[in-house]
Amino acid sequence: MQARQQWRVAVLPGDGIGPEVMAQTERVLSALADREGLDLTATRFGWPSHAWHQQHGEIAPADYLQTLAGFDAILLGALGDPGPTSNPDRYLLSDADSLAPLLDIRKHFDQWACERPCRPLPGAPCYLADARAADIDMLVIRENSEGEYVGQGGRLAPGTEREIVTQTGVFTRRGTARIIRHAFEQARLRAEQRRRDSRARHFDGCESQVCLVTKRNALKFWGEMYTEVFAEVSADYPDVATHHELVDAACMKFVTRPWDFDVVVASNLHGDILTDLAAVLNGGMGVAPSCNLNPADRHCPPMFEPTHGSAPDIAGQDIAGPTAMLLTAAMMLDWMGEEDPAARRAAGRLRTVVSADLAAHGGDDRGTTAVGEAVLARLRDEPA
Amino acid sequence: MQARQQWRVAVLPGDGIGPEVMAQTERVLSALADREGLDLTATRFGWPSHAWHQQHGEIAPADYLQTLAGFDAILLGALGDPGPTSNPDRYLLSDADSLAPLLDIRKHFDQWACERPCRPLPGAPCYLADARAADIDMLVIRENSEGEYVGQGGRLAPGTEREIVTQTGVFTRRGTARIIRHAFEQARLRAEQRRRDSRARHFDGCESQVCLVTKRNALKFWGEMYTEVFAEVSADYPDVATHHELVDAACMKFVTRPWDFDVVVASNLHGDILTDLAAVLNGGMGVAPSCNLNPADRHCPPMFEPTHGSAPDIAGQDIAGPTAMLLTAAMMLDWMGEEDPAARRAAGRLRTVVSADLAAHGGDDRGTTAVGEAVLARLRDEPA
Ligand SMILES: CC(C)[C@H](C(=O)O)[C@@H](O)C(=O)O
Ligand SMILES: CC(C)[C@H](C(=O)O)[C@@H](O)C(=O)O
Repeated sequence: MQARQQWRVAVLPGDGIGPEVMAQTERVLSALADREGLDLTATRFGWPSHAWHQQHGEIAPADYLQTLAGFDAILLGALGDPGPTSNPDRYLLSDADSLAPLLDIRKHFDQWACERPCRPLPGAPCYLADARAADIDMLVIRENSEGEYVGQGGRLAPGTEREIVTQTGVFTRRGTARIIRHAFEQARLRAEQRRRDSRARHFDGCESQVCLVTKRNALKFWGEMYTEVFAEVSADYPDVATHHELVDAACMKFVTRPWDFDVVVASNLHGDILTDLAAVLNGGMGVAPSCNLNPADRHCPPMFEPTHGSAPDIAGQDIAGPTAMLLTAAMMLDWMGEEDPAARRAAGRLRTVVSADLAAHGGDDRGTTAVGEAVLARLRDEPA
Repeated sequence: MQARQQWRVAVLPGDGIGPEVMAQTERVLSALADREGLDLTATRFGWPSHAWHQQHGEIAPADYLQTLAGFDAILLGALGDPGPTSNPDRYLLSDADSLAPLLDIRKHFDQWACERPCRPLPGAPCYLADARAADIDMLVIRENSEGEYVGQGGRLAPGTEREIVTQTGVFTRRGTARIIRHAFEQARLRAEQRRRDSRARHFDGCESQVCLVTKRNALKFWGEMYTEVFAEVSADYPDVATHHELVDAACMKFVTRPWDFDVVVASNLHGDILTDLAAVLNGGMGVAPSCNLNPADRHCPPMFEPTHGSAPDIAGQDIAGPTAMLLTAAMMLDWMGEEDPAARRAAGRLRTVVSADLAAHGGDDRGTTAVGEAVLARLRDEPA
């Protein structure tokens, strides 16, 4: 593979607070690029968004996926603002539509892995009483391409007393094997990194662990297949400990003993739930980054997006914290950094200044622009 | 309806720690019955259990559901112990089988509502950092008869590279309407009770609230129907505020702002996850009661069971806390108390002594028998 040193990024601010947090992130990225000699071109699009829909009658141009295919990576702010409406029914119904591009982009670019790291930074809000919460260090890997999200099913006799609705999850062995294998690969990388940082952890005599989450005691077919594939793949990783949790118990332990987890792998829906809980462990939606990617093909553009949504209730007031968006940009730079040393330096520096800002100010409410300014100032003051 | 004053209870200690916590609960129930003049006959069965399976080749007699039909209520300890085995694959596979009776009893007796109240008792372990956790007061109502748990689906070409697995949820409008209506009824009852206790709460100008949880932005068919039925039913309850959360956001808010919820209603699988989180908010599995019932037919025997499982790793050591089982018995007495004043008194008294014990000893590790003894002693010392 030819290492890339030039990066074209499609910037999709989206809806609600998306444009606000993105504006600060663009400023910071541009300052970082100058400073580290990173060749990054950001192209901003007004779609997908509610505003675009109001003007053009559709949430994005018909060929928007083709447009995005011309980029190395996608940086997304937030989607899901149903737009101004006083009709609550209208609001209810537009939920799925306003978010459709998120799911469409994931599918179109076969971004079958969603990664949401969870390692609280000092200063981030902490919701747990136990001091060991500071030791949390896990990575939740979510199957992002199939399963419960395939959209199969239907409504028989809708609206009548005898209505029956089906909603079907479709799980392939191929899709299952690749996400589980990816989890084991990440577990190994994490163990290596911890060894380098002299903070090795131990799980049943191994330095890393993968925990599979299912609901196999009630959702049998899917649970059986996941369990079998997990056993098969794990045989190739004798150096990685294995564990299994039912989804209800896993959610519970994310609150009672989250420091026990290392890598967690789950289906699309369960991964959605677990990653939201992991976001809380990180300090809440204000600080939780995420990425969607195809680990088998670096030329499929990945999408980086904060875990938070568009929060229409606080949009336009310059009060949403941009930290999650900034840390999401750092994940993008990490990904570029696998090919480009300048991006790797930029990722490290961005994380340093965001962490310092968080440590100094905690979860206070300085506002979007103020945090952006503070991070930029720290960047200028940082020794080269 | 003829009010009952005689109660036949089928006691199913089950597996793992089940028999231990049940033994203490039986002693306490018998002392309570004597004291309050409650006419309660407990009949203990050795099935369903792993031990029964070892002796008879099946987890319970073929006609066990018919046997249970002769009782007013079922009190269950715990199931799910796969039994002693050194073969982890064997362990993995028996998971679903060892729990099957739990799901079979729910289905056979059409126990379509699962209720898990969440109101932490003083002294119970608290996992959240925020002091408002003491104000948590919610009831999670889980659809318990259909949805994701119908067991529909299959495996195409199992074990091969091209394997495809489907797992289908089936949701009926009838099943949806009755559980949502039950949630609104419970919300009303809770508001009345709070008014009587002079601790009214306020939600958008109402004294109670029902929050519907779905994942309608991704699981469309089911989400649409639930949303429509919720809107329809809520029209009959203008005195109850309504709210909607996506399941990922709901799980997050159960950790960040659980005191905001009143009644929460969710599908079978999502209810399973949310009730485990609610159990944590109660102080963990050691103190979380639960019941499965048919609110439309009090002559369908309900099943009362703690939220915890069989915890085979600590079974047989007299160290499992019986508090969850005792509070589960109190839920059973509450239910009987709707017809029988003696049961109502017994429920109140049981809760008083268990609360006093918890407040005095918190989450300490006195062991199963010791807690049983302490509760019995308090019962003897209580003024009549
Ligand atoms: C918006 C929604 C469809 C999405 C999902 O469920 O995947 C979101 O919750 C997320 O986690 O990225
Ligand atoms: C044991 C299992 C099948 C069960 C469920 O998922 O319903 C349990 O988790 C529960 O919550 O009662």
